[in-house]
Amino acid sequence: MAEIQALTFDVFGTVVDWRSSIAREAKAIMAPKGVALDWAAFADGWRAKYVPAMAKVSDGGRPFVILDVLHRENLVELLKETGVEGLSEAEIDALNLAWHRLDPWPDVREGLARLKRRFILATLSNGNVRLMVDMARRASLPWDAILGAEVACAFKPQPEAYDSAARMLGLAPAECLMVAAHPADLAAAAGRGFRTAYVHRPLEYGPGLDRKRPAPGTFDYDADDFLDLAQKLGADQP
Amino acid sequence: MAEIQALTFDVFGTVVDWRSSIAREAKAIMAPKGVALDWAAFADGWRAKYVPAMAKVSDGGRPFVILDVLHRENLVELLKETGVEGLSEAEIDALNLAWHRLDPWPDVREGLARLKRRFILATLSNGNVRLMVDMARRASLPWDAILGAEVACAFKPQPEAYDSAARMLGLAPAECLMVAAHPADLAAAAGRGFRTAYVHRPLEYGPGLDRKRPAPGTFDYDADDFLDLAQKLGADQP
Repeated sequence: MAEIQALTFDVFGTVVDWRSSIAREAKAIMAPKGVALDWAAFADGWRAKYVPAMAKVSDGGRPFVILDVLHRENLVELLKETGVEGLSEAEIDALNLAWHRLDPWPDVREGLARLKRRFILATLSNGNVRLMVDMARRASLPWDAILGAEVACAFKPQPEAYDSAARMLGLAPAECLMVAAHPADLAAAAGRGFRTAYVHRPLEYGPGLDRKRPAPGTFDYDADDFLDLAQKLGADQP
Repeated sequence: MAEIQALTFDVFGTVVDWRSSIAREAKAIMAPKGVALDWAAFADGWRAKYVPAMAKVSDGGRPFVILDVLHRENLVELLKETGVEGLSEAEIDALNLAWHRLDPWPDVREGLARLKRRFILATLSNGNVRLMVDMARRASLPWDAILGAEVACAFKPQPEAYDSAARMLGLAPAECLMVAAHPADLAAAAGRGFRTAYVHRPLEYGPGLDRKRPAPGTFDYDADDFLDLAQKLGADQP
């Protein structure tokens, strides 16, 4: 069996807690303007438009655009749906950049530091390059390379998103371990020959939800968090 | 005037000392096999084949291939020309990866650390992603993103190499500062709207050569090294 050389990471939900962060950012920008909303529900509503917007690109319904563009279109829709009025274009732009300011889960920095000593670490996200760069600089995420949708001109789960990442890392897919909290992403990666690591993020969609773990053996690894993943990959020296 | 947000770096010669490093690696692999060569001249000979090989791609004479592929073809030619025989395919592969193991100039690590606090730092090199990743991991180069030829599917000085870097950074070209020891690279970047910083690397082609600096005012900045550049950009706090 090929040795794992690189870890490729899903980011939204797997590395960062988009829900709390978006709720915080939305409140910080809109509350001073007198907007009162359920901020977590606002984050959920914005996120809910994510997959359909990408699917329109992946289905050939429109040419590839970066996620910042889709996020902004979705935000304008959501503001209309929630009855928020009076934000300027510049304020909408600023709110859209909330996705560049997401906080990592508590185990991420130490987990990535341990994993980095042994493996190449790359993002394999649907986020665009600048989004990933801003997030990484703010949260000190030590990526070796920013790969994924923008570089591939294809959103996951399109094959080219995974294929281009392995190709640019100079690796066979079986030398790459896809790390994600989302079974569908892992299944698509496995379909392109990647190894797979499921990381359980029970709080991604908020507290109190009973998120089922995949059945044992569904993926190559099943980890509680990045520290547990590092241990399971033999990269557990602090 | 637009504020500079990102620095995009030429790498071979500007960030790393390819000549000494390739000479060292070639000697380490070939001397034990009884090969005796002028190792610096070997490095020069390998490097001399670099620009013509890329030009063939840029001129449309062949489809885009990554630099690792061109380097290997050039190496096989050079071995023939210098009369070196008896290297196995695996040994040629290993020698080809010498370009992944180049040492930075002495000022680079501290210079990049200072610059990183203030600017996004990206490679804009003709080297492929894996080459840049291996080099950065070995030499602790803190890139925020690996851009350039492979991601652009175009070698510098083709416009798309520069254009794609600015686009993926989400910046206007005038918000990007191209950093290079090579006037032709800087001139091409300026032609795409980038700001430019010349860094003097008098030892790139070996000691004793009188490398002229560009006339004052040719580029936006003229620096002795990365520490000097950091100071000139106001990023000089250690």
